[in-house]
Amino acid sequence: MKNCLVAQSGGPTSVINASAVGLYLANKENGHFDKVLAGLNGIEGVLREDFFDMSELTDEEVELLRTTPSAGLGSCRYKLKDSTVNKEEYEKLFDIFSRHSIDSFFYIGGNDSQDTVKKLSAYAKENGFDVRINGIPKTVDNDLMVIDHTPGFGSAAKYIATSVLESYLDSLVYTNNGIFIVETMGRDAGWLAASACLARYNGRQCADFILLPEVPFDEAAFAAKVKETFEKKNHVYIVASEGVKYPNGDFLAATKAQSHDSFGHAQLGGAGNAIKAIIEANGITKRIKVLELSVLQRCAFHAVSEVDLEESGKLGKTALELAAAGETGKVAILVRESDEPYKVNFTSTDAANIANKVKYFPAEWVTPDGFNIKEEALSYFVPLAGKMPEYRVIHKYHNM
Amino acid sequence: MKNCLVAQSGGPTSVINASAVGLYLANKENGHFDKVLAGLNGIEGVLREDFFDMSELTDEEVELLRTTPSAGLGSCRYKLKDSTVNKEEYEKLFDIFSRHSIDSFFYIGGNDSQDTVKKLSAYAKENGFDVRINGIPKTVDNDLMVIDHTPGFGSAAKYIATSVLESYLDSLVYTNNGIFIVETMGRDAGWLAASACLARYNGRQCADFILLPEVPFDEAAFAAKVKETFEKKNHVYIVASEGVKYPNGDFLAATKAQSHDSFGHAQLGGAGNAIKAIIEANGITKRIKVLELSVLQRCAFHAVSEVDLEESGKLGKTALELAAAGETGKVAILVRESDEPYKVNFTSTDAANIANKVKYFPAEWVTPDGFNIKEEALSYFVPLAGKMPEYRVIHKYHNM
Repeated sequence: MKNCLVAQSGGPTSVINASAVGLYLANKENGHFDKVLAGLNGIEGVLREDFFDMSELTDEEVELLRTTPSAGLGSCRYKLKDSTVNKEEYEKLFDIFSRHSIDSFFYIGGNDSQDTVKKLSAYAKENGFDVRINGIPKTVDNDLMVIDHTPGFGSAAKYIATSVLESYLDSLVYTNNGIFIVETMGRDAGWLAASACLARYNGRQCADFILLPEVPFDEAAFAAKVKETFEKKNHVYIVASEGVKYPNGDFLAATKAQSHDSFGHAQLGGAGNAIKAIIEANGITKRIKVLELSVLQRCAFHAVSEVDLEESGKLGKTALELAAAGETGKVAILVRESDEPYKVNFTSTDAANIANKVKYFPAEWVTPDGFNIKEEALSYFVPLAGKMPEYRVIHKYHNM
Repeated sequence: MKNCLVAQSGGPTSVINASAVGLYLANKENGHFDKVLAGLNGIEGVLREDFFDMSELTDEEVELLRTTPSAGLGSCRYKLKDSTVNKEEYEKLFDIFSRHSIDSFFYIGGNDSQDTVKKLSAYAKENGFDVRINGIPKTVDNDLMVIDHTPGFGSAAKYIATSVLESYLDSLVYTNNGIFIVETMGRDAGWLAASACLARYNGRQCADFILLPEVPFDEAAFAAKVKETFEKKNHVYIVASEGVKYPNGDFLAATKAQSHDSFGHAQLGGAGNAIKAIIEANGITKRIKVLELSVLQRCAFHAVSEVDLEESGKLGKTALELAAAGETGKVAILVRESDEPYKVNFTSTDAANIANKVKYFPAEWVTPDGFNIKEEALSYFVPLAGKMPEYRVIHKYHNM
């Protein structure tokens, strides 16, 4: 008996289940493992031996799971301590692996989860356990090193850009329009906010401003440019990442009470309202709306990117093939060959290259004033989101 | 030369343009009017003679306009005063109608806009102007009298229910889950919040609570029931209308600064945060997320209800036929014949039956404790939203 175990960790995405199903279906085809076990609630559930055999699912259930958002196996935010600190936990895990004939463990997650892959695979090697530990990438934040883009990001980008386009049209219907602010996720990296560059109307980008955590926020310059834009167009559309920071590193949202999650990250929220307060304080207008996309950007499967869905499944398959080839401590990744026609290759990298690291939005794609994204970034985003809605309105404010 | 004029008023919807296009295409077929003129920014633009001939649009542009959310002709929140107060405005309007050979004016809007239809048609009759004034209904709020449901509502309901279902799945992934609150639009009537009853999982409704403006909010009973539900399930999902009120009529959101729009309506926001504060004050949990769907619920055409889109076009056609038959002071409406198979008839009612009136959510569809919607309301909602996504997850918290 030679089984494998797959589990999900961290925040949900629209396509995290597609990776688990991709792995399961690839194994069904090549029969490398006798059973694909699914661990519930990530490493937390694995430690409780809370898992089940995926072959218990009907074909219809498997297909429904593939096309369901959010972590269908449950998730956790449990950070495995170093094996020198909590050796018992490692011993317990490998005892569980042994008793359930688990030859390979796959962890689907972001840079924290790939740290778990790194630690477990190192521990296995050091202690002579013949168990392969490999990772499958996942995060809407798109902030993993090495990989061209992360599964989950394309769907989030499509949802954000679609919502920006639709709320842009909504914000322009009166003769006397105000300022509209959309806040996206993105604590450290601005990829999600930047994906708003996909929202285009009449050949131009909807957002007048796209604010990223990577660009220190110059409040005076921002207020001056908002004022100028509002005076010219009687309307301003602003996209802001939740993680926008002042030059001293303080989050704009820092006036809000901050708590910390179990990974020690500050829990943010409120950058949009902070920007609203700045605009009001500068006397520009009081007609300001703030929209926080909140969790919808990571779970809105109804607007899934087909490319993202397909790639997520293929990354599950790639991880299975890595394990079958005897690899351990690796993460399945994709590398872009070309933008148009869009082409990626599926390969792998050491988990150490991804664990705990952050891939920031490239400085060369930010406009010189720091307030927007250059046109040349579009070719990166376009294939990831796939087909966007096309709209047409007549009233003259759209000819700006 | 015999022309007609169509304009849009009030808040945008996903399908308001489909009504204008439905009217235009019906006229293209029957040739009743020489030109269909489109007024920009509602009655405000009409008073500026800001309109254009819709036949200037290519077939492709017409089809794009039909499938574009938000008021594609621009909108306004201009309330026409009584003709005894501002006779000049009425004289100016009918002079414009006369100079542009406008035989019929169509106003697409909610209960405020239908008040304009009522006033203008009465003024025309009293002053011997041979101009027909008719209305086409529109509002995501679904709060118009007589009509079975309003164009725009079905798409909003589908978007809300889809977002509730997806954020419900998102809110359940951990072993230690918190409380999730979604705030919908709905100042006076709870139809939008109630449409969350369409979000179902494993044969049951996702929302543990659906709070409507029509049901006086019993804070103590609410806190007790939230506590009980959270202790039982370690998770509570709450949908709240922005207009939820205390028994004395105060909005829960009233602690927030209130402004008023030009119709004298209080501009609300913050019921979700008010509920969060109540839950915290009762020491139930601090793990609470609030999601305000904001303008997305009225402009998310990417999740349009096909039924809603089709009916909106047919109501435009119905209004054209009313005018062609010499009617004035009417509003095109639809009457439901049956739920299953779903069947509606297109007819009309006097604008006076709709103007300034509000259709509240029926008390008999509210559960006895006032905290949810009865199952029997489902058959009303199901055909309006159309096909909802179907999802499947495995982790045990979904078997609750």
